[in-house]
Amino acid sequence: MNGGTTREAAERLDADDPLAAFRGRFVATDPELIYLDGNSLGRLPAATPELLRGVVEQGWGDGLVRSWESWIDWGSRLGDRLAEHVLGARPGEVVISDSTSVNLFKLAAAALDAAPDRGTVLMDAEDFPTNRYVLQGLAEQRGLRLRRLRSDLDGGLSLDVLRSALDGDVALVVLSLVSYRSGALLDMAAVNELARAAGARVLWDLSHAAGAVPVELAATGADLAAGCTYKYLNGGPGSPAFLYVRRELQAALRQPIWGWYGQRDMFHMGPDYDPVPSIERFLVSTPPLLSLAAIDPALALVEEAGVERIRAKGLLLGQLVTDLAEEWLTPLGFRPASPARPEQRGSHVSLHHPDAWRICQTLASDARVVCDYRVPDRLRIGPSPLYTGFTEVWDAVHRLREVVARGAHLSRPAELARVT
Amino acid sequence: MNGGTTREAAERLDADDPLAAFRGRFVATDPELIYLDGNSLGRLPAATPELLRGVVEQGWGDGLVRSWESWIDWGSRLGDRLAEHVLGARPGEVVISDSTSVNLFKLAAAALDAAPDRGTVLMDAEDFPTNRYVLQGLAEQRGLRLRRLRSDLDGGLSLDVLRSALDGDVALVVLSLVSYRSGALLDMAAVNELARAAGARVLWDLSHAAGAVPVELAATGADLAAGCTYKYLNGGPGSPAFLYVRRELQAALRQPIWGWYGQRDMFHMGPDYDPVPSIERFLVSTPPLLSLAAIDPALALVEEAGVERIRAKGLLLGQLVTDLAEEWLTPLGFRPASPARPEQRGSHVSLHHPDAWRICQTLASDARVVCDYRVPDRLRIGPSPLYTGFTEVWDAVHRLREVVARGAHLSRPAELARVT
Repeated sequence: MNGGTTREAAERLDADDPLAAFRGRFVATDPELIYLDGNSLGRLPAATPELLRGVVEQGWGDGLVRSWESWIDWGSRLGDRLAEHVLGARPGEVVISDSTSVNLFKLAAAALDAAPDRGTVLMDAEDFPTNRYVLQGLAEQRGLRLRRLRSDLDGGLSLDVLRSALDGDVALVVLSLVSYRSGALLDMAAVNELARAAGARVLWDLSHAAGAVPVELAATGADLAAGCTYKYLNGGPGSPAFLYVRRELQAALRQPIWGWYGQRDMFHMGPDYDPVPSIERFLVSTPPLLSLAAIDPALALVEEAGVERIRAKGLLLGQLVTDLAEEWLTPLGFRPASPARPEQRGSHVSLHHPDAWRICQTLASDARVVCDYRVPDRLRIGPSPLYTGFTEVWDAVHRLREVVARGAHLSRPAELARVT
Repeated sequence: MNGGTTREAAERLDADDPLAAFRGRFVATDPELIYLDGNSLGRLPAATPELLRGVVEQGWGDGLVRSWESWIDWGSRLGDRLAEHVLGARPGEVVISDSTSVNLFKLAAAALDAAPDRGTVLMDAEDFPTNRYVLQGLAEQRGLRLRRLRSDLDGGLSLDVLRSALDGDVALVVLSLVSYRSGALLDMAAVNELARAAGARVLWDLSHAAGAVPVELAATGADLAAGCTYKYLNGGPGSPAFLYVRRELQAALRQPIWGWYGQRDMFHMGPDYDPVPSIERFLVSTPPLLSLAAIDPALALVEEAGVERIRAKGLLLGQLVTDLAEEWLTPLGFRPASPARPEQRGSHVSLHHPDAWRICQTLASDARVVCDYRVPDRLRIGPSPLYTGFTEVWDAVHRLREVVARGAHLSRPAELARVT
């Protein structure tokens, strides 16, 4: 890396960081804590408590049911902002709704029902559990064949593996743009093109991509996508998810949970389900408004910073992690669990170590560095460009080196984590 | 009614109200506003903003991802409290999850999949739209017959109608314990008994019942239920819903959205879906934590007051509404849209009037009384015993009489509401 791996080099990167001021736009009350788990739960934006106070005290407390007049399309308005500033989609193609899992279920089911002559679903054998389980359920319920594609565990699914699996029986391919574990970044345009040529639809999980890497749903002709808002979008714990359906597909697809939020003239409450032709046909019912509202000020920060600048900084942060890891951590038994070059990854980097679980715990308790662990032997390091500094990353890896070098983790029992 | 329909009689009821002090436990900044729409969105408990501030600022802001250690089973802990204090269920039979619509979908699908030899679903033709649409979707997807039972629109579904429809082909009966429109209260024990005799399952929607009337899921041998937490439970706009599955049924049922929150050892992230045997198998994924948290202090108020006392006051409030309506409103063109006696209803009362929509709007804007409207001609008046006083009800109906008597509503255009 330009400038080397000294702390002074990291300080120079911070001094030159055009996003440095965004750090102050997030709550960070503990100056000692280094937080590298924004890919699990993003930090609290400083503007969020005040916005929530207004929604709770004025909106709910004073406005009561009348506030739904302004709340009812908030998920659509946030969806349009996500479309424009984060997902490269068009107005009316994105809406906030339910959880990522429920959205994946709805969209996958809709796509499968629209392709009754095809009997195969493709997924990445290493994808996030809920994606795999949701698809397993849908395949079993519909008597479809579920093919679990396998490729380099840490390098991401290869296009060759996908190409050879894409025959004329494939109805749907479900993939994460950025792997939750390795951080491997797929080529959305190439995957969409391969699937289109085979007559299959692609459903993208953008949970680890949205707000971290540029996404171009419209330009790559993507069909379907869903993803969460509480990682790099900083919407708060369990904030509701987004879903995307390409405009031209919307009226032809019907999701299986026929809730009244998808109904034409919903307050007419007519006898039969008659969904709107627009993206709102993929809604089900009343959103969890407080958790929805918290997405608003968080998204404003991403809009202000711009995903291009976020990505540019993310590449440098990722490079710094791997440079330091190579120099300091490889001698301590770590080896890379992610693609080598930052362009091949999202914003997080994973490392293998046989004691990863105990190291992760010790790092948090003894060295005040929070990153996370994934079975069986991976440490995930997730800098979030909006609020993670280069010196922080340097200090974190330095503390990690010290913990492992002095064997501080070895006194812990080797049990398994319970936390996301 | 004892004491008559004078304002002094209402004041005496307030003076004798054992729940009167609970009014001060809710936010009510506008002393002129009379809020009779707690059956749509309950008022803000005074303790809720502080709890939310803690969850947001300490939990999310300071604790970050580590807070999931204590958050992750919050939905189960709240479920157990609901089971004990509100639903008459046993520990491990209730959990908070998703929306009411999604829960109805999951539970109905699970019940239908467990009865593959039966081909009929029964529902109330007058049930809340989302219930009807969800069942219509499930029936269409599975090639089942959906029978829409019709009976007295304002008196609720009669047991005779249900009895005659319950043949050996019925897999599932879906009913609301309290009708969203008329407020009609069904006899849960009798319905469960009829269905049991016919070998059918009953799925109860308790949205307008929970926190308003005593519910005895265990004592009546209920199989399945779901319902919302933002009406009489005051959990806040769109707060996540609850679901109930009788303990003995849990392991035998499998819901269709195989999310990772139902997985055994979820953080082992194993290759195949292998759901826990307990109520958590009906979970899907990460709950919207802020909206979930707000249920906690709200439920504490219901627990402290006790559903029996809430119901006792609710009966008196309902009697006062119908007594005043008979005396003052019948001459103005209103007629009852609910069962006559308070024991036959939940906590809200509906009235027919050809101008109901305009009256409802004018009442809010000119007379500061918020109740709500349902197509085509119903005014819903929903006192909530925890915070509605008898004098308030008296004043509200008095203002309603004045608005209609002087024709204040007649200058409004006759358009349709957009709000829940």
